[in-house]
Amino acid sequence: MAIVRLLFFCPDRPGIVASIAQTIFTLGGNIIQSDQHTTDPGGGDFLMRVEFDLSEPIDRAALAAGVDRLSHAFDMRVAVSFAAEKKRAAIFVSRLDHCLVELLWRWKAGDLPMTIPLVVSNHPDLKPVVDGFGIPFVVFPITPDTKREQEEKMLRRLEGKADLIILARYMQILTGAFVAHYPARIINIHHSFLPAFVGGRPYEQAAQRGVKIIGATAHYVTENLDEGPIIEQDVARVSHRDGVPDLIRKGKDIEKAVLARAVRWHLEDRVLVYRNRTVVFA
Amino acid sequence: MAIVRLLFFCPDRPGIVASIAQTIFTLGGNIIQSDQHTTDPGGGDFLMRVEFDLSEPIDRAALAAGVDRLSHAFDMRVAVSFAAEKKRAAIFVSRLDHCLVELLWRWKAGDLPMTIPLVVSNHPDLKPVVDGFGIPFVVFPITPDTKREQEEKMLRRLEGKADLIILARYMQILTGAFVAHYPARIINIHHSFLPAFVGGRPYEQAAQRGVKIIGATAHYVTENLDEGPIIEQDVARVSHRDGVPDLIRKGKDIEKAVLARAVRWHLEDRVLVYRNRTVVFA
Amino acid sequence: MAIVRLLFFCPDRPGIVASIAQTIFTLGGNIIQSDQHTTDPGGGDFLMRVEFDLSEPIDRAALAAGVDRLSHAFDMRVAVSFAAEKKRAAIFVSRLDHCLVELLWRWKAGDLPMTIPLVVSNHPDLKPVVDGFGIPFVVFPITPDTKREQEEKMLRRLEGKADLIILARYMQILTGAFVAHYPARIINIHHSFLPAFVGGRPYEQAAQRGVKIIGATAHYVTENLDEGPIIEQDVARVSHRDGVPDLIRKGKDIEKAVLARAVRWHLEDRVLVYRNRTVVFA
Amino acid sequence: MAIVRLLFFCPDRPGIVASIAQTIFTLGGNIIQSDQHTTDPGGGDFLMRVEFDLSEPIDRAALAAGVDRLSHAFDMRVAVSFAAEKKRAAIFVSRLDHCLVELLWRWKAGDLPMTIPLVVSNHPDLKPVVDGFGIPFVVFPITPDTKREQEEKMLRRLEGKADLIILARYMQILTGAFVAHYPARIINIHHSFLPAFVGGRPYEQAAQRGVKIIGATAHYVTENLDEGPIIEQDVARVSHRDGVPDLIRKGKDIEKAVLARAVRWHLEDRVLVYRNRTVVFA
Repeated sequence: MAIVRLLFFCPDRPGIVASIAQTIFTLGGNIIQSDQHTTDPGGGDFLMRVEFDLSEPIDRAALAAGVDRLSHAFDMRVAVSFAAEKKRAAIFVSRLDHCLVELLWRWKAGDLPMTIPLVVSNHPDLKPVVDGFGIPFVVFPITPDTKREQEEKMLRRLEGKADLIILARYMQILTGAFVAHYPARIINIHHSFLPAFVGGRPYEQAAQRGVKIIGATAHYVTENLDEGPIIEQDVARVSHRDGVPDLIRKGKDIEKAVLARAVRWHLEDRVLVYRNRTVVFA
Repeated sequence: MAIVRLLFFCPDRPGIVASIAQTIFTLGGNIIQSDQHTTDPGGGDFLMRVEFDLSEPIDRAALAAGVDRLSHAFDMRVAVSFAAEKKRAAIFVSRLDHCLVELLWRWKAGDLPMTIPLVVSNHPDLKPVVDGFGIPFVVFPITPDTKREQEEKMLRRLEGKADLIILARYMQILTGAFVAHYPARIINIHHSFLPAFVGGRPYEQAAQRGVKIIGATAHYVTENLDEGPIIEQDVARVSHRDGVPDLIRKGKDIEKAVLARAVRWHLEDRVLVYRNRTVVFA
Repeated sequence: MAIVRLLFFCPDRPGIVASIAQTIFTLGGNIIQSDQHTTDPGGGDFLMRVEFDLSEPIDRAALAAGVDRLSHAFDMRVAVSFAAEKKRAAIFVSRLDHCLVELLWRWKAGDLPMTIPLVVSNHPDLKPVVDGFGIPFVVFPITPDTKREQEEKMLRRLEGKADLIILARYMQILTGAFVAHYPARIINIHHSFLPAFVGGRPYEQAAQRGVKIIGATAHYVTENLDEGPIIEQDVARVSHRDGVPDLIRKGKDIEKAVLARAVRWHLEDRVLVYRNRTVVFA
Repeated sequence: MAIVRLLFFCPDRPGIVASIAQTIFTLGGNIIQSDQHTTDPGGGDFLMRVEFDLSEPIDRAALAAGVDRLSHAFDMRVAVSFAAEKKRAAIFVSRLDHCLVELLWRWKAGDLPMTIPLVVSNHPDLKPVVDGFGIPFVVFPITPDTKREQEEKMLRRLEGKADLIILARYMQILTGAFVAHYPARIINIHHSFLPAFVGGRPYEQAAQRGVKIIGATAHYVTENLDEGPIIEQDVARVSHRDGVPDLIRKGKDIEKAVLARAVRWHLEDRVLVYRNRTVVFA
């Protein structure tokens, strides 16, 4: 049996679930999990994730035709994926290793259903870590002058090889031109604070402000940095006993945990992006 | 528009979602939220909650007929409820007021969609609190000798008036005979510990054991006390600085929070009981 | 036995703990809890809370003299309080009752060691709630034109009666002139978001942004609103299923929990304000 | 400057803090953090942790003499440690790698101030992982017949080399004879449930019981397995969507997080064991 996943987004109206379910039934599928939400009963957005079993070999043409009919009937955006086809995730890093190591070990433990075609970095430092996992490590040094050029090289290197890019504390801002190649397919992690701080050295600011909580946010990257659709957030408690190094250490722990969850949900096709926000289906 | 909610439980097989959705579509309904789960793709349990809008006046005969057909077609247990018909919840208390007060204030704030036909107690102590909310307060004193007799009086007093019984720290054990009248319709709250403690004075034991976490569990009452299907659980951190009074205070806070969530989910028809456990639909 | 609490703040140097402990020992006191922190071993701030038992009747002159000597010897700010002398807390409210009710019930349950000389409001709406607890409720209607004048009336009404002011969702901004009368003695609660939102209707903004977490912050009020020293913060998870009313409901729950904790810690003299931030001693 | 840490345990009476602080002052030390707790003001246990700076070279004889005087004066158990002298932790594993990898990476990141003289296992499987960190890996295969003999070999191998033993999912029960060599110096991690389950296959039982929370407990090992003093506990939320593999995965995440925190606190000399429970100083 093959597990197929569908994500639907369209204007709400009666009959959509029935049509979807009928389509799947006609294909011979058995729905094993579905989760649907309408943002506003009187004319909002229809959002749904369905996971179903199909006997193999799958009749892909029939599936495509069924999805196509639904798409036209309801003015619907549909994403189709197969659980058995692992997504290919390129990981971008700079010098900090905590997010990278978290992803690699979870991947190795079988917790992240993906392949890792390569790790990209603007520095050579983390090569030994990546080598230990048998994954190609490619360095693209970046300066303000070479960024465009290097990004184009990266794009060529990634072409046809990556379904997802994970910025695991990659300290370069990608250009809009680069981001446009991977819409809702670049995941970033950054620290978050209550209240928010502008300017540099956020942990120093957090310590001076005496915050009791620090957080992290994983989001899809759009042209407006740190403004893309939020996938996951979490926080940790801190106290006056936590100096700046403790805040940084606790911040790393949240960052890697939040990033790993966001990546996992993306890989399981649980995240649907709409109107610059996300639904994360349980 | 009227909001209708359906809960389904049956052996899994292909086509169930399609039939349910088609039935609702035929009734003129628009599904606004649905959540479905199959415990085991190869022949497990099918579990689903659907919430849909129907134009008023509702054709109840057609709805009943549709549900009936589904029920027979799939050997299915179906529960039907209407969001507009608030459940009637009788609250049972003894002398501790924290859970009672939490429920009454959340009810008054509009957070708990229920009516409260009466509060039952084996002690008169909390009458003033309940009077302040304009709710009848009825005392049934209990001794080992009079328990059966008093429970029968309670049952008569409640007959036709209560859809749910909430044990808000009611310190009497209900007999199996009483419980049998309200299957999966009596919610209890009790403290929980890691590790578990047997015997009395659990907070003293927790303090002596030096636990770092205390918890509470809300569950449906079955004949086997504290063994019924779990609806919700939560914990709070404690430390060596917490003496027994602090543990009790923190324990109360978790108890009332967990109980209020469990009650809310029950009132919103989110809880489906099967095989002595629950699904809580999001 | 009487429990005395001391809070100390001064530049760090060797010998301070010894002098404090010797002073207490000389007074006949037995230290039952102490917590001390130095922000930077090489010349930072010395921060300490001590709780000790003294035989009654207390020799207040001797205590004051001892504290005075310490204060001069170490250029130290010292706050002295007696556990038996409950602080008097005036509660300010507008129309929302969730924080008020939380405080009143916790107070009645004995969880908040304070007296409540009066509740102040700019609206009469919550009078019945407060009346039920036997507490005076005084209305000071506020318009932009009358604010200064009404605040002066409030100050006269509170004079000599309040050690603490709790803004339990009081929807007026106090003037700097008012705030100056209660330095580090006015506690406010407000919602907090990751990321932060500017402008009005924050819950609508949070829903549109698709945040996964909402929070609340309790802080002392200074002239710069929402910029005072943070006492406590907490968050709750939210999802796409939470509409604006759900966000508001969950927001209320965090607000009242965070406010109650902050107030409790203040009442137990656990909060020391320094350099526009706080230490909350465990 | 050298950082010295002292842990004190004795019957409470007035003057202890003064004597301790005076002793440190006389040694030329500057206290940078201290935390003290008395379990019962009227004659309980006195518990304290002090961290102070001493100029180097340290006069160890004077320090020992000071500690000795305190110890005799107050019938006190005192533990002395130096922050610069990292503890030597032997890690015991079997086949599961999640706790091992967590410890190794945190150690490599500088988050766990220890050295790792060796990793001990009853299976060869995890040798490649440990080799990658340049740490000796020693296999002691265990059968019921060889356990005593092998444990004696282990003890000889560890003699003079380990201050702490971390059971990172070591699936053998150590004999009382072995445990007696490392009192309060063997840390174990195990899963914990609300309610508790007896018998095997706990995650299957948890799934069948429909628990909403799973947890883990880190504790010192005593002769009574799983009954030793608790150092740290934590939980994670689970739902009906979590099958047994998900429970196991989430369980692993809590186990490794709880174990890492417990180890860190032990290494920082924050954990004081008394009366079969612990104080964890903040």
